[in-house]
Amino acid sequence: MKHAVLAVACLMACAACGGSPDAPASEDVDGSETAQAAAAAETPTPDFAGIPDWRPVDPADLLLIQVEDGMIAIELADWIAPNHANRMRQAARDGFFDGRSFYRVIDGFVAQGGRGEDPDAVELPQYPPLAGEFAVPASTVTFTPMIDADLYAPMIGHVDGFPAAMDEAGSAVWPIHCPGTVAMARDNDPDSGDVEFYIVIGQGPRHLDRIMSVFGRVIDGMAHVQALRRGDPTVNSGVIADPTARDTIMSARMASDLPVADRPAYEVMRTDGQAFFEAKQSRRNRTHEFFFETPPPVIEACHVLGPVRLVEQPDHD
Amino acid sequence: MKHAVLAVACLMACAACGGSPDAPASEDVDGSETAQAAAAAETPTPDFAGIPDWRPVDPADLLLIQVEDGMIAIELADWIAPNHANRMRQAARDGFFDGRSFYRVIDGFVAQGGRGEDPDAVELPQYPPLAGEFAVPASTVTFTPMIDADLYAPMIGHVDGFPAAMDEAGSAVWPIHCPGTVAMARDNDPDSGDVEFYIVIGQGPRHLDRIMSVFGRVIDGMAHVQALRRGDPTVNSGVIADPTARDTIMSARMASDLPVADRPAYEVMRTDGQAFFEAKQSRRNRTHEFFFETPPPVIEACHVLGPVRLVEQPDHD
Repeated sequence: MKHAVLAVACLMACAACGGSPDAPASEDVDGSETAQAAAAAETPTPDFAGIPDWRPVDPADLLLIQVEDGMIAIELADWIAPNHANRMRQAARDGFFDGRSFYRVIDGFVAQGGRGEDPDAVELPQYPPLAGEFAVPASTVTFTPMIDADLYAPMIGHVDGFPAAMDEAGSAVWPIHCPGTVAMARDNDPDSGDVEFYIVIGQGPRHLDRIMSVFGRVIDGMAHVQALRRGDPTVNSGVIADPTARDTIMSARMASDLPVADRPAYEVMRTDGQAFFEAKQSRRNRTHEFFFETPPPVIEACHVLGPVRLVEQPDHD
Repeated sequence: MKHAVLAVACLMACAACGGSPDAPASEDVDGSETAQAAAAAETPTPDFAGIPDWRPVDPADLLLIQVEDGMIAIELADWIAPNHANRMRQAARDGFFDGRSFYRVIDGFVAQGGRGEDPDAVELPQYPPLAGEFAVPASTVTFTPMIDADLYAPMIGHVDGFPAAMDEAGSAVWPIHCPGTVAMARDNDPDSGDVEFYIVIGQGPRHLDRIMSVFGRVIDGMAHVQALRRGDPTVNSGVIADPTARDTIMSARMASDLPVADRPAYEVMRTDGQAFFEAKQSRRNRTHEFFFETPPPVIEACHVLGPVRLVEQPDHD
C-alpha cells in the first residue's frame, strides 16, 4: 500500500512536470489579482495553539473493504450518523458484505453495493430500517468555516476532516457530497436505509446533501473504487445484470476486529488546525508562476477534503 | 461497446432501485420549495423551432484512444482551440501516441500522457510549441447561458456540448474544466503546449479555466480513463516511475482516418435545443418523491455536460 495524501497533494498540470501550480514557489505575475487574492484571506488568523496538525484514525472507525483491485479504507463518522455507522460496524462484524458486490456502478456518480438487488433484495430482519441521520445540531460539533461562497448552502467548512455545511441560523451542520463521500442508500422513505451503501465517484452530487445519511468517507483506495466495473446507466438504473461482471466485495472488516498486525494505521489532517488553514490559503491564493493569470480566489468545497496519510501498514503487506 | 449516455442518465441513489430522483415521476412533497424551484426556471422559454435535439459527431473531430481496458472517444473542439485540435489530429495520424502511455495519473485530478517524461521529454521538432488558445470572442460561438450562479465565472453555459463560461462584458467565452475535459499540458510558459495532454478525472479543477488550452472532451469511455493505474501524488508529481506499471496507449487514431466500417458513430445532444433545455430544467427542479426535501434549485456547471449517444458501432466490434 502506498503513502496516501488525498487532497493537498501537488496538483499540477504542466508538461514534463516543470511547474507546480499548487505548490507556490515564486512571485505572481499579476500584482492586482494577487492583491485581490490576499484580501480574500481568512482573517484574523485563528489561534491554533494546542491543536495538533494531525489526528489518528480510530481502528473502531476504520472500515476496510477488500475488492480484487485493492483495499478501500473508509472512516466512519459517529458525529453525524452514529446509528448508520454502527450498522456498518455490525454488518462488517457479521461478515454480511463478504461475497456481495458493487452491483450498481454509474460512472461519474456513485458505486453502490452491500446489499444487492433481487434475489437479495429481501427483508433483512437483522438490519431493520434506520431513521435518517441527515444533520446534527451545530453545538455538537467543531465546524471550521470556509470564507468561500457555495451554490448549495449558506456556509461551508469542515468537521473533523469531512467537508460540511451549515444553515443560515448557524444551528444545523451536515456533511456534503464530494468524491469519496459514503452514505446509505434508501427508498423514497427517508427512514429506509439498511446496509445498502454508495460511494461518490464523480463530481460531488450536492443535490443529495441533507437528504441522505452520510456516514463516512473514503480515506484511502479511491483509485480502487474508480476501477470498479460500471453498469449502463440507461439500463435498469445502472445495475450490472450479469453477476460475473460485477466486482465482488471479498471482505469488509472493521480494523478494530482485526489482529493489530493486520491493521493499517492512518492519520487525518485536523481541519481545525494550522496546517489545514495554510493548505486552504495556498489553494485560494495561487502564486506559482504557472498561473500567468491568477484564478479567482475561491475554493469549491469539494476541493479541500481533509488530507490523509498512512502511518503504518500491515506487517505482511 | 455500450450505448453511452454520459450526463442526463438516471442518477439515483436509492436502495433496491425503487426511486429515481433525476427522473421526475410524481408530486413533490413540499409545496413551498417546489414553488421556489419553479420560479428559478429559465424564462421565457426560448424558441427552439428548427433546432434538432441531436447533432452527429464529425469523424474528423473524433479521436479514438485505445487502452487495454477499452476505447476512449474524445471530441475535438475547433471552436475553442483549432491549432491544438489540429496538433492532435496530426500526431494521431503520425502514430506518435502509439506505444506511449498515461504515465502521470493522479486520482481525483488528471490522467496525463501522450508525450512522456524522460527520456521522452526531448524537443519534438515536428511539434513546435503552440500559442495558448484559452478563450474566444463570444461573437464566434453559440453560447447558451445557464441561469445558475457560479463560483468562478460571471456566467456559465454551453457551447456545442461543452460546458463553458463567459466574462462579465459578454465578449469572451472559454471552456471550463469538468470531468472528461481534455486539454494540453504546458510548462510555465503559456505558449508551451506540444502533444502532452491531460484528461480531468476528478472534481472539476476550475482554477485551470482560461489558463489551459482545452481542446476536447471525452464523449465515451470515461470508465476506462478512471480505470487507468494511478501514480503516487507525493512522489515526482504523480509520475509512475516503473514504465511497466503504466497503462499503454495502444493506438490513437482519428475516426476519419479509419475505414468507415471501423468507425463508431456518435451523436451529441445540442446544448441550444429543447431536449437539453428540458434536461436542465428537470435537474434544477427535482420533483420526484425521493426528494422529501427539495434541493436548492441550482445546477453546478459540471453537472450538465452535453449528453452523448452511440448510434453505430464498428462492424467487427
